[in-house]
Amino acid sequence: MIELLPSILASDFARLADEVHAAEAGGGTVIHVDVMDGHFVPNLTLGPPLVKSLRKHTKLPFDVHMMVERPDDFVAAFAEAGANWMSVHYEACPHLHRSLSLIREHGMEPGVVINPATPVEVILPVLPMVHHVLVMSVNPGFGGQKFIPFSLDKIRRLKELRQELGLTFRIEVDGGVDAETIASVVTAGADLLVAGSAVFGGGHAEQQARLLLELARKAAAAA
Amino acid sequence: MIELLPSILASDFARLADEVHAAEAGGGTVIHVDVMDGHFVPNLTLGPPLVKSLRKHTKLPFDVHMMVERPDDFVAAFAEAGANWMSVHYEACPHLHRSLSLIREHGMEPGVVINPATPVEVILPVLPMVHHVLVMSVNPGFGGQKFIPFSLDKIRRLKELRQELGLTFRIEVDGGVDAETIASVVTAGADLLVAGSAVFGGGHAEQQARLLLELARKAAAAA
Amino acid sequence: MIELLPSILASDFARLADEVHAAEAGGGTVIHVDVMDGHFVPNLTLGPPLVKSLRKHTKLPFDVHMMVERPDDFVAAFAEAGANWMSVHYEACPHLHRSLSLIREHGMEPGVVINPATPVEVILPVLPMVHHVLVMSVNPGFGGQKFIPFSLDKIRRLKELRQELGLTFRIEVDGGVDAETIASVVTAGADLLVAGSAVFGGGHAEQQARLLLELARKAAAAA
Amino acid sequence: MIELLPSILASDFARLADEVHAAEAGGGTVIHVDVMDGHFVPNLTLGPPLVKSLRKHTKLPFDVHMMVERPDDFVAAFAEAGANWMSVHYEACPHLHRSLSLIREHGMEPGVVINPATPVEVILPVLPMVHHVLVMSVNPGFGGQKFIPFSLDKIRRLKELRQELGLTFRIEVDGGVDAETIASVVTAGADLLVAGSAVFGGGHAEQQARLLLELARKAAAAA
Amino acid sequence: MIELLPSILASDFARLADEVHAAEAGGGTVIHVDVMDGHFVPNLTLGPPLVKSLRKHTKLPFDVHMMVERPDDFVAAFAEAGANWMSVHYEACPHLHRSLSLIREHGMEPGVVINPATPVEVILPVLPMVHHVLVMSVNPGFGGQKFIPFSLDKIRRLKELRQELGLTFRIEVDGGVDAETIASVVTAGADLLVAGSAVFGGGHAEQQARLLLELARKAAAAA
Amino acid sequence: MIELLPSILASDFARLADEVHAAEAGGGTVIHVDVMDGHFVPNLTLGPPLVKSLRKHTKLPFDVHMMVERPDDFVAAFAEAGANWMSVHYEACPHLHRSLSLIREHGMEPGVVINPATPVEVILPVLPMVHHVLVMSVNPGFGGQKFIPFSLDKIRRLKELRQELGLTFRIEVDGGVDAETIASVVTAGADLLVAGSAVFGGGHAEQQARLLLELARKAAAAA
Repeated sequence: MIELLPSILASDFARLADEVHAAEAGGGTVIHVDVMDGHFVPNLTLGPPLVKSLRKHTKLPFDVHMMVERPDDFVAAFAEAGANWMSVHYEACPHLHRSLSLIREHGMEPGVVINPATPVEVILPVLPMVHHVLVMSVNPGFGGQKFIPFSLDKIRRLKELRQELGLTFRIEVDGGVDAETIASVVTAGADLLVAGSAVFGGGHAEQQARLLLELARKAAAAA
Repeated sequence: MIELLPSILASDFARLADEVHAAEAGGGTVIHVDVMDGHFVPNLTLGPPLVKSLRKHTKLPFDVHMMVERPDDFVAAFAEAGANWMSVHYEACPHLHRSLSLIREHGMEPGVVINPATPVEVILPVLPMVHHVLVMSVNPGFGGQKFIPFSLDKIRRLKELRQELGLTFRIEVDGGVDAETIASVVTAGADLLVAGSAVFGGGHAEQQARLLLELARKAAAAA
Repeated sequence: MIELLPSILASDFARLADEVHAAEAGGGTVIHVDVMDGHFVPNLTLGPPLVKSLRKHTKLPFDVHMMVERPDDFVAAFAEAGANWMSVHYEACPHLHRSLSLIREHGMEPGVVINPATPVEVILPVLPMVHHVLVMSVNPGFGGQKFIPFSLDKIRRLKELRQELGLTFRIEVDGGVDAETIASVVTAGADLLVAGSAVFGGGHAEQQARLLLELARKAAAAA
Repeated sequence: MIELLPSILASDFARLADEVHAAEAGGGTVIHVDVMDGHFVPNLTLGPPLVKSLRKHTKLPFDVHMMVERPDDFVAAFAEAGANWMSVHYEACPHLHRSLSLIREHGMEPGVVINPATPVEVILPVLPMVHHVLVMSVNPGFGGQKFIPFSLDKIRRLKELRQELGLTFRIEVDGGVDAETIASVVTAGADLLVAGSAVFGGGHAEQQARLLLELARKAAAAA
Repeated sequence: MIELLPSILASDFARLADEVHAAEAGGGTVIHVDVMDGHFVPNLTLGPPLVKSLRKHTKLPFDVHMMVERPDDFVAAFAEAGANWMSVHYEACPHLHRSLSLIREHGMEPGVVINPATPVEVILPVLPMVHHVLVMSVNPGFGGQKFIPFSLDKIRRLKELRQELGLTFRIEVDGGVDAETIASVVTAGADLLVAGSAVFGGGHAEQQARLLLELARKAAAAA
Repeated sequence: MIELLPSILASDFARLADEVHAAEAGGGTVIHVDVMDGHFVPNLTLGPPLVKSLRKHTKLPFDVHMMVERPDDFVAAFAEAGANWMSVHYEACPHLHRSLSLIREHGMEPGVVINPATPVEVILPVLPMVHHVLVMSVNPGFGGQKFIPFSLDKIRRLKELRQELGLTFRIEVDGGVDAETIASVVTAGADLLVAGSAVFGGGHAEQQARLLLELARKAAAAA
């Protein structure tokens, strides 16, 4: 099932509840939350207190993308704040199996993220234990970047592997997903589509979300 | 001049513009922004994107308290986002003079922060170059903590030093400032009063800010 | 040849010489020593001074498992303390070839360790130079954890690779090896079996070691 | 009251229970435990599992000296393992007040340690909250070093400050304390005397402890 | 096309301009510059100021090999100092795609380096975007080390991959390249040959460079 | 005795031997060497290999200023390379007494450096053991910065302390020392004068060194 995940990184943080409501009205089903610590990536964004505040304003699940060093230190805090899914980077987790297990133990759905330069093969051992794989189609750290085309190969490869291994993880894509690129991403095999600027960038979050979702569903139907 | 600095750490992050407007209506004149990176302190809060969003909703100056390792890396980003004052920790800055200079070069007012265990004497060389000294009266990292009484000695000592040295820096206090403690803080010599839970904790930010300010002014008049 | 490696992490550290003698009496042939620094893993255990003390009480070789950041810093100290084998993590060694070479230069047998999430393929270039590969079947850091079943696939894959490449490294397994799991581990191809709680957990180290070894040999004979 | 704290760093770790019993028989009243992580100091020694094992063999209080980066991470583990006092370094704790508070919250007596190069004045703000101040009279990391004479000045200064401020903290000294130096240390004002090699170095822990204690008491009586 | 890259690490740093001129006279076409920060590798060598000085004395391109943590921090400084190519380590770059992009954005040719223990497969996703791949045939950090023979397999594998994928990256080798090993390196498929001691070690840089180049070309012709 | 220390950071690194000879001809008596690792300061300059090369071209002593994290790691390498004095930062050395002792054990003269924001009082315990105190009169990291005037207060305070305590350490100043500032520095009490751009900046190192020295001596005579 195709789902749209509006990413609040591109929203107006001063009116977050309103922004999220608009995105939900447009068909967004999961809120994507970009956590950056200024160490793993060169930007600093938000943490558990913001998630806790937002939790009171929406029932949509939160998908927390941890762009931090030592994500294990924050698993409990985000779970308590109301996060539902949590994705951690292969590149940030020397003990990746432990990190993913810890996320599940705290009642969240674990996902693994791979950076643009990271091959799919290195995460093979954890595919059976993740709820989703997040393919970064830009380098994490900032919104508004351009989609890296060879990400499509990775999506296709993950789809094949899922079939070969009889697994059920979902395929999420984040970075440069917009009206121009969304069809190719869906055709390649992604079903969780993160969109930031493409939803919140123009001031009409509801309509923009709706349009994206429509394009995605059309591509899925044609695939 | 006594000023109240509402700290948004205790506010509802999903309705930040509203919260800030309420605090302003109650007499808050500078917005205190707690930046934490999950490394210098065990909490992660917010960064430049949030400040940039908020900038469009208020004209009040932002006082950014950097609870991060390597604050120099983020001076430019916060200045561009619209920050007006920036305070850095003695304990986080091996090159404190450079950090303070960098803040001024980016058009912001520099302040130095000292943790509860840090004596006033170690910051003597930078007193002539700061806009304010921020005395932490709790350990930084979380809102809602209890005021540490011996912070009052440090405030008094700073006031003496300011007079002795003929300087003009302002004295800011952050941590556990509420209706019960605010008078003693003002009497000791502080003039920039940060309040988080005491303003935003009970749902009536405007009234709570007003009350605090009144108590502070009364204490100042009596001093 | 099947060997049992009693892991002192689960022993009574206040009577270490006695514990080791009991394990040796039960058929343990190599003492497994878990070194943790509280940085690479969230536990802190022991270092060179303890190994040096223990060296005077037994002739068995010591297999030192380095769960530390920058293991190269401690190669000399452990060699001088009397260590015989040393294993370092793929995940902790950006210069893995140097680390393994350094261990050999200090007169110890080098081994490489892979965490549960790490695929066998990434250590292919160093297989010709190691004395053993240590497959973690739990996440390193604490004793008493449950065996992760897909570790068996890695053991089998290593056995195949050893044959294909005409190599001689031994296959070691650490984590959750007990009376219930030991046969499957041996059947998959492991020949160095680390056991902590299963040896020292119940107060009868000698008998427990003997039992484990018997089960392991039976499985090896049946394979 | 003068107390002798035998430091197990110099003992035979393979027979720790016996060593501790001997030191106790000789008059040792608190066991000093040197925790090193190979990061704050260039040696790695022991952690919570060893303390937990030892706890079952003696009723003496344990004084845990944390020579580690980020000691807060291990406060809970040592408390659970049975530690009674815990000392943390001024040089390792940017949030020293928090670290000391955390130790007390876990039911242990907090102490602050200063390295040989660190002046007494920088810990003035925490003197009212500590159970003891530990003056390092060698550089931490290894046993068997020579006493640094100017440590005596710091002990004297602390004694004066204690009187001036009407406080009750105890004064502990660690490093090179032996039959030759112990009298001068006591005369200067220390009452908690850590001794490693001088107790365990020669194979007669009981007699050596007794001798040291006698010398210390004699010096105290003469002071 | 076979090219020789004299590595100044082995030259007389006090007469750098002369050394470079001699190497150029002997046929060197690119100057290899080893940047070490004492953190990623246990040696500290040189930085932008030296490159800037040298830039005024030669027109040859500089190939800067970054043996540092966080190489992104120095991309701009080296570009301004006059560097032409820049190579970064797979092992040092969690965001490798970003690092390589940044190098190109600063007008330099990006290369990726793999350590002796690192398999070729992990850099597959970035092969289309690099100007060259640098295969380390010793562990980086010091000059004068012995060539690791299995590096030849990696060179061959890269040559195959280049053909299979229709790519154009060049294959560079660094470590132990001298009169004895250079033919095998060329035969295996390398075309950018870094030589330090073999050029500058004996005091006759021009002749030594000429000899190496001759041997390399002979091997290339015979391949 | 007033001495001039030409700092090679400002010289032409491609003709280092010539630059040093010119500075020596102009009266420079000690060569100042700025070692930066890109971690303690945001610049990367040079390391042991360069010092080793330069050692063969001059008999002047080298004064190595360590602007690095963990300077202890490089003490041996610089001593072997031919360094004579070594200065380490108070801000970089949690175990300052150990670092200074280590320098002396390697046959070099130890010095302690304080950054512009660091008060003189924190280094009181090590004054008896240092050969010199280096007062930074700019923030370390780059050449060509402007002298910070309040550095003069620190120089005066050090001179007083030296007299009061009956010590013999020398007082060195680094940063913005030029024809305009040198007299005030000498008058305040400094006797080791580091000059970079003021010596090497204009292309006439010999004359510029001579002029500076003359101004310094004149100021000393007048003091």
